[in-house]
Formats: sequence, C-alpha cells, structure tokens
Amino acid sequence: MLETIFTHRSIRKYKNIVIPENVLDEILKAGSRASTTGNMQVYSIIVTKDEDLRKQLWEAHFKQDMVLEAPVHLTFCADFRRFTRWCEQRKASPGYDNFLSFFTAAIDALLASQNVVLAAESHGLGICYLGTATYMADRIVEILNLPAYVVPVACLVTGYPDEEPPLTERLPMDAIIHQEKYRDFKPEDIDRIYKEREESNETKELLEINKKETLAQIFTDNRYTKKDNLYFSKQFLKTITQQGFMNHD
Amino acid sequence: MLETIFTHRSIRKYKNIVIPENVLDEILKAGSRASTTGNMQVYSIIVTKDEDLRKQLWEAHFKQDMVLEAPVHLTFCADFRRFTRWCEQRKASPGYDNFLSFFTAAIDALLASQNVVLAAESHGLGICYLGTATYMADRIVEILNLPAYVVPVACLVTGYPDEEPPLTERLPMDAIIHQEKYRDFKPEDIDRIYKEREESNETKELLEINKKETLAQIFTDNRYTKKDNLYFSKQFLKTITQQGFMNHD
Repeated sequence: MLETIFTHRSIRKYKNIVIPENVLDEILKAGSRASTTGNMQVYSIIVTKDEDLRKQLWEAHFKQDMVLEAPVHLTFCADFRRFTRWCEQRKASPGYDNFLSFFTAAIDALLASQNVVLAAESHGLGICYLGTATYMADRIVEILNLPAYVVPVACLVTGYPDEEPPLTERLPMDAIIHQEKYRDFKPEDIDRIYKEREESNETKELLEINKKETLAQIFTDNRYTKKDNLYFSKQFLKTITQQGFMNHD
Repeated sequence: MLETIFTHRSIRKYKNIVIPENVLDEILKAGSRASTTGNMQVYSIIVTKDEDLRKQLWEAHFKQDMVLEAPVHLTFCADFRRFTRWCEQRKASPGYDNFLSFFTAAIDALLASQNVVLAAESHGLGICYLGTATYMADRIVEILNLPAYVVPVACLVTGYPDEEPPLTERLPMDAIIHQEKYRDFKPEDIDRIYKEREESNETKELLEINKKETLAQIFTDNRYTKKDNLYFSKQFLKTITQQGFMNHD
C-alpha cells in the first residue's frame, strides 16, 4: 500500500494494450469501498472506452494526447440522481437540490477516485487526472448525457504506462502541515519553502523559455491566469446551477 | 494496498494510545504524494492533538464521542493562502479568489485525505471522516484560525481502533458504474438496486424504531432533511465567500 502511494506519478504516455475486464472491475470495486456520507453512495463513475466518445472527450480536455492514447477514460460525478429517484419512488421528499448536497456528493466522488487510482497503480496501471474536468464540465455533461443532479468533478485516464517519469518534487512538509492551529506564513517562511524549487535547473530553464523574472509569474501569467479562472469559474457555477444544485429558496 | 482498501470501515471507538510521531509523519507524507493540480499543492492539513482544541472541535462536530476519544483530529483545507502569498512576494498577480480555484484546492485536499486514510489504515490505525466538517465550516475556521483563502473541506479523526465493526454493505456495482455514457435509471432499476438493503433486518428494525414506512423516509425526514441541507448550504456558501473565494467581477 505505502509503496504504491510513494511511487505515484502521473502517466502521460500509454501502451496500446486493453485493460482486462476483471482488472477494471476490481479497481472500480475498490472505488466503492471508500467512505461515503451516510452510506448514500452519492456518486457515479462513467467508464468510457468507445473511440468516438473518447475523441469528443479529448477535444473537451484541451486535446491532450493522453486522452486518445489511454484505453479508458473515467469520469467521477457528484450524483444525487439515483438517490433522489429512490426517494421519489418511496414516498419520501428529497431535499438534495442545494450546494451542500452537491459538495457532499463531490467528496464521495473524489474519495472514490483516489481509491480507484491506488488500486489501478497496484495492478501496474498508470493514471493521469485531467484538471480540465471542472473547466469543461458543461461539455462533459453533453458528451456523457449527464442528467439533473449529476456533475462531473474529476476525470482521469488509465492504461498501461509507456514511460517511467521521475517522482515529482514536492514542497517541504511544513508547507502543508500545521500543528494544532493554522500558523500563517511570514515572508521568510515563503522564501524558505519555495527556495529549492526556485533554484532548480528546471525553473531556470522555464524562466528563460518564458522570458519571466519569477516562477510565480509563470503560474499567474501563463498556466493559471486570473482571466481563465474567472471564465471557467462562472462556467462551472453555471453547470452546477443547471444540473439543479443551487436551489436555496 | 488492495487488502487495505477492501477492509476499510469507519472506526468510532478508539484506544487511549498515542500515535508515534514517525507513524504520523509517514501518513501525512503519504498525503503529500497524491496528485495535485499543476503541482501547486493548494491544500493544507491541520494536525490537532491538544485536548482543549479537540473539545472545541468535538462541540463543532455535533458532540460525536469519537472526536474526544481519538488522539488526533485532522482538518484538510482547500488552501490558496500560501500560493497567493508566494505570488505577491514574487511580483506576480494571483487570481485565485474565485470558486474554480476553491474547487481545485478542494480536490487537492480530498485526494490527499484519502491517501492519508489508506496510509493510516496500513499502519493499523482506524479513521472516521466527519460529515460535519462542511456543515460547521464557519466554526472550524474560528477554532483553527483559518485565514483568507483557506476553507476546511474534510475532517477526520484517527487512532488505534477499539472495535472491529463489520464491513458496510454497498449497493450493487451497477448503481454507481455507467458504461460509455450515463444510463438513467428506470423505476425497476431503482427497485432492484435497493432491494437487498430495503429487505434487510437492519432496515426492518430502523423502520420500526422510527415509525416510518420506507427507508428513504428515514433519510429525508430524519438524517438529511431539506431544512438542514438548506441551512447548512447557505452557511457553507457564506464561509466560502467570507474566506475570499467568490470574487467574480
């Protein structure tokens, strides 16, 4: 278990090999063993292998090659659809058309996704989460026919790896761990935490290629800009609303 | 790995035994190996052991005994604080005060939390997620001094188990798995999916105790009511807004 966790890296190149059904079944079942609020299991996993559908998903995911290469695309959805239907069919009045319920269901979906990831990796598969899942939620809703009370919150591709990338460097642990309460960061904490990353050769190359003064500017100006964030933020909220999760009257 | 996943159950009774520091360090480090958007690591984990703080958290979590019993309380936060500070200190203009950034950070936090859970369990620890984390986010913000751009999205307690509960029954896999696209549920699908659970002795006892006609009514009338969902939904949105994640102009 621990070895699987500590050797995780995202895989972006895949072999053209089908995942055996029994392996796929087991990793999905691993997802179903994750904690779920009140044992409601308010999430769903859509398993897409069809080439035409994967091509549509590839377009939605900013045409990242790995979406076409990997044989399986998984969509993890916050899903109160089945639960709501069950209530309606059993003389019960469901009240799950609100943001809290969406978020509860999103937690269910994300915990299940991480179980699936680790189970996949323990079977020798590689995975890559696609950050574009929330950016393009509206398009994914269309492609996969998601009904009301279903919103995609994470997508990933999986298959047998055709590369062995090095582990990604993480920040020192005290960048993410706080003892007892939150300890806010002083300027010198920030300097220390980011020092190694900022002084790496990788960063120096990035600064040169992008003609930027600091690594942070590459994030704010190129990778995750305010303009894009605002645009996709409004889109995602619109999708959550359209799918029925923002009724607060 | 797979055995740990397939034997997970929530633990609600704990032994009065301290978790060794090296074990705690390793399970937190396991959290840091989870996938994170753009390697930004936009989450934090607050490790609370102090008895007075845990008592305050226990009150926030609807006074569930396990919060007092377990020696460690972990709070997983969506956190753009450190990243925003870094940008500001490096002549970069951060644009992470929006809902998409909150949700991106929440995903980071939740994937890390599930890694921590599985690492803890592989060390013989038990865990229990606390659904009250989002209901009472405003109170947790106060207790743990969370600054702007930090919102709690999951809490859990951990310690050595003092019980060995049976595995929780899950619905049949086709309740959560959809092949290729979403296949909406027909009334007979709902009947079939919930049949075993509805016919169990546990359900029969619950119906008698609660004087209800259907299991679904126990969820809608007692456990997760529309009134509570609406109240806590508005509260949670208020907290997300107050912490600075709803600036969309």
